[in-house]
Amino acid sequence: MNDQDWRSAAPVAKLRDYARSRSWRIGTQPRVVLSHGVRYLSSRTTFKASDLQIEFCTPDQLKKKPAVSDLVFGRHFTDHMLEIYWDDKAGWGQPRITPFHDLRLHPAAKVLHYAVELFEGMKAFRGRDDEIRLFRPDKNMERMNRTAARSALPNFDGNELIEILKKLISIDQEWVPHAESSSLYIRPTMIGTEPTLGVQRPTNALLFVILSPVGPYFSSGFKPVSLLADPEFVRAWPGGCGMMKMGSNYGPTLAIQKIAEERGLQQVLWLFGPDHKITEVGAMNIMVFLDKGNGEKELVTPPLHGLILPGVTRDTLLTLGRQWGEFTVSERDITMAEVVQAESEGKLLEIFGAGTAAVVTPVGEIHYQGKVIKMPTLKPEESLAQRYFNTIKEIQYGHVSHEWSVPIE
Amino acid sequence: MNDQDWRSAAPVAKLRDYARSRSWRIGTQPRVVLSHGVRYLSSRTTFKASDLQIEFCTPDQLKKKPAVSDLVFGRHFTDHMLEIYWDDKAGWGQPRITPFHDLRLHPAAKVLHYAVELFEGMKAFRGRDDEIRLFRPDKNMERMNRTAARSALPNFDGNELIEILKKLISIDQEWVPHAESSSLYIRPTMIGTEPTLGVQRPTNALLFVILSPVGPYFSSGFKPVSLLADPEFVRAWPGGCGMMKMGSNYGPTLAIQKIAEERGLQQVLWLFGPDHKITEVGAMNIMVFLDKGNGEKELVTPPLHGLILPGVTRDTLLTLGRQWGEFTVSERDITMAEVVQAESEGKLLEIFGAGTAAVVTPVGEIHYQGKVIKMPTLKPEESLAQRYFNTIKEIQYGHVSHEWSVPIE
Repeated sequence: MNDQDWRSAAPVAKLRDYARSRSWRIGTQPRVVLSHGVRYLSSRTTFKASDLQIEFCTPDQLKKKPAVSDLVFGRHFTDHMLEIYWDDKAGWGQPRITPFHDLRLHPAAKVLHYAVELFEGMKAFRGRDDEIRLFRPDKNMERMNRTAARSALPNFDGNELIEILKKLISIDQEWVPHAESSSLYIRPTMIGTEPTLGVQRPTNALLFVILSPVGPYFSSGFKPVSLLADPEFVRAWPGGCGMMKMGSNYGPTLAIQKIAEERGLQQVLWLFGPDHKITEVGAMNIMVFLDKGNGEKELVTPPLHGLILPGVTRDTLLTLGRQWGEFTVSERDITMAEVVQAESEGKLLEIFGAGTAAVVTPVGEIHYQGKVIKMPTLKPEESLAQRYFNTIKEIQYGHVSHEWSVPIE
Repeated sequence: MNDQDWRSAAPVAKLRDYARSRSWRIGTQPRVVLSHGVRYLSSRTTFKASDLQIEFCTPDQLKKKPAVSDLVFGRHFTDHMLEIYWDDKAGWGQPRITPFHDLRLHPAAKVLHYAVELFEGMKAFRGRDDEIRLFRPDKNMERMNRTAARSALPNFDGNELIEILKKLISIDQEWVPHAESSSLYIRPTMIGTEPTLGVQRPTNALLFVILSPVGPYFSSGFKPVSLLADPEFVRAWPGGCGMMKMGSNYGPTLAIQKIAEERGLQQVLWLFGPDHKITEVGAMNIMVFLDKGNGEKELVTPPLHGLILPGVTRDTLLTLGRQWGEFTVSERDITMAEVVQAESEGKLLEIFGAGTAAVVTPVGEIHYQGKVIKMPTLKPEESLAQRYFNTIKEIQYGHVSHEWSVPIE
């Protein structure tokens, strides 16, 4: 009830008590207690995995795990979470794993007014050998730091966060589903918590991570989705932040997503410019597979010119496609006119979305300016989307050994 | 610690107890208790002032009021706040005024990930007759509802919120400063609270209002500010949400504001398009006052074409200017080239920002592509910005009677 006491006082007090009794601490870094019991590592520019403190759940705090068949994306959360506070004078505080709990935020916290917030999306997979693996976590850490700099939020050493994530997942490892349709979604988030209303860079922030066991992102599974392509609504623009994973890229899309759903369509295809360039689909990158007519095929995705999120799955598909060497892999602009013409000439093979949540999502049809552009029906063995899905799944679930797959212990 | 229990459980439990004892309730609307003790008005499309419940601070909860000379914008908050919950099935809950407190949010609340958030900025003024007045609150309510619709957040009856705001301000009336340099800033805010990670319209929201006694927005007072105009950074774009008061318009600006400050400048001048149209300044609308050369003068501000926030102060300045009839009032595009040329010909009279927080803010110089465009030095009696500032102040502080000024009781 005190407007100064905004920094998640309850868990901090609990942690202080905990430190005196049953805390498990790695490392012996000297610490400074600044205020509210939050210990900062004197002006540290990064936190360290070796400073991690852990408060385990008591038996009565453990939650019941949902059945794999009941998993809806991002609805269930595990028993523990990670929190790391930052202060512009003192730097990063100690990383703390605690029982999952509500955040206490001052109602003037900048995140609630000015969208001072960013996130990442990653996954952990239980392999057929029962080992748990992350997929290319270094890519997420690089992007999170890039987004933080653009968001006026603090940077950190991504390797330290990966080490801490491994520990967090290890603690909640029973939440990593025992099914290859499912995985553990990891949501690192950073928010500006300074409780003042000036439109300025926050002097305080919180990095937190929550974990969510997930089934397929779309309840329809690996079924083609239908898209609304309306050039009236623009997701990102030159000089903006379309290439950053900031909350501000998502809020303005929800009303348009609702319009699509009201028309019976699943997702929005985002266009840009007078020539209606294809940019992204929903919250995914987009891939267009074309028959070039001379026995050649081309996989096209828009280049990273500032309007496009540099997706980890996007990079994975491009890298695999180039390794296979069976078709041209192009990062180039592609317009709706080119898609419409390719479809009319029978040269449009497939369109699919690419992202961490759904991996690969085939597109069935696009509703655009009164027309419906339908994709050809393919047998699974003919589908490039399906081939990508299978290949990535084999890497993620440890069917094959791959440098992209990083075991948590 | 329960991930289902995300709806500010502590204050709700307190309110439930309160309802049994010393609650003060207006009206006798039938209510449905749905969950967590939050009472919803069955599928109501708006809340009602007549359903307001109030829990007053206990004497030990009352805070010390800062001296007027110590008031920094948005740093101090009053003793009470307003909360109204919304649920897509049940509609709006009961409005509740409670002691100022932290919000408890589930860490997956959509506001923290996808910037599902909007706000308004209003002020209450203590007149020389000691009466407290709002300034054009209906304009803020209209804009808040427009922004809510674009944000996939719920609408409500703005007149009901105005009535509730009057009550809230009345309760905290000792916080309305007794000085004409100061006022009570009112921050209505709405956030999406549904605790799931799908990128979709939230099924739960919270409207809250906090109050902050404020001095001048800029600590320098009514002194000219210097601006950074860098066309590399774009605030808003066609097909986007620049005309909405959504959090997502502000987060991406903080890093640029920081760049300006590091160069010793106070604010950012936002440009758009290859011809570098002037759009806004910092979080304010912009006004350019030109000498047309033939004894005519023109006040120019960009038109409401979707990139510009329809500011209440902007509308006030345009309306007053047209009433005065002494110069042309133009809502038209104006480019940096036109400003540079006007300055070189001695025809650039003044540039100033217009917004609720600072009212009118004169611009001293613009740093643009290696050039510094300086405004002419004016005596206060020559300045249009000063004349506007004085005129609005006379209305806001009750020196004159005006329909824009709305007494709180």
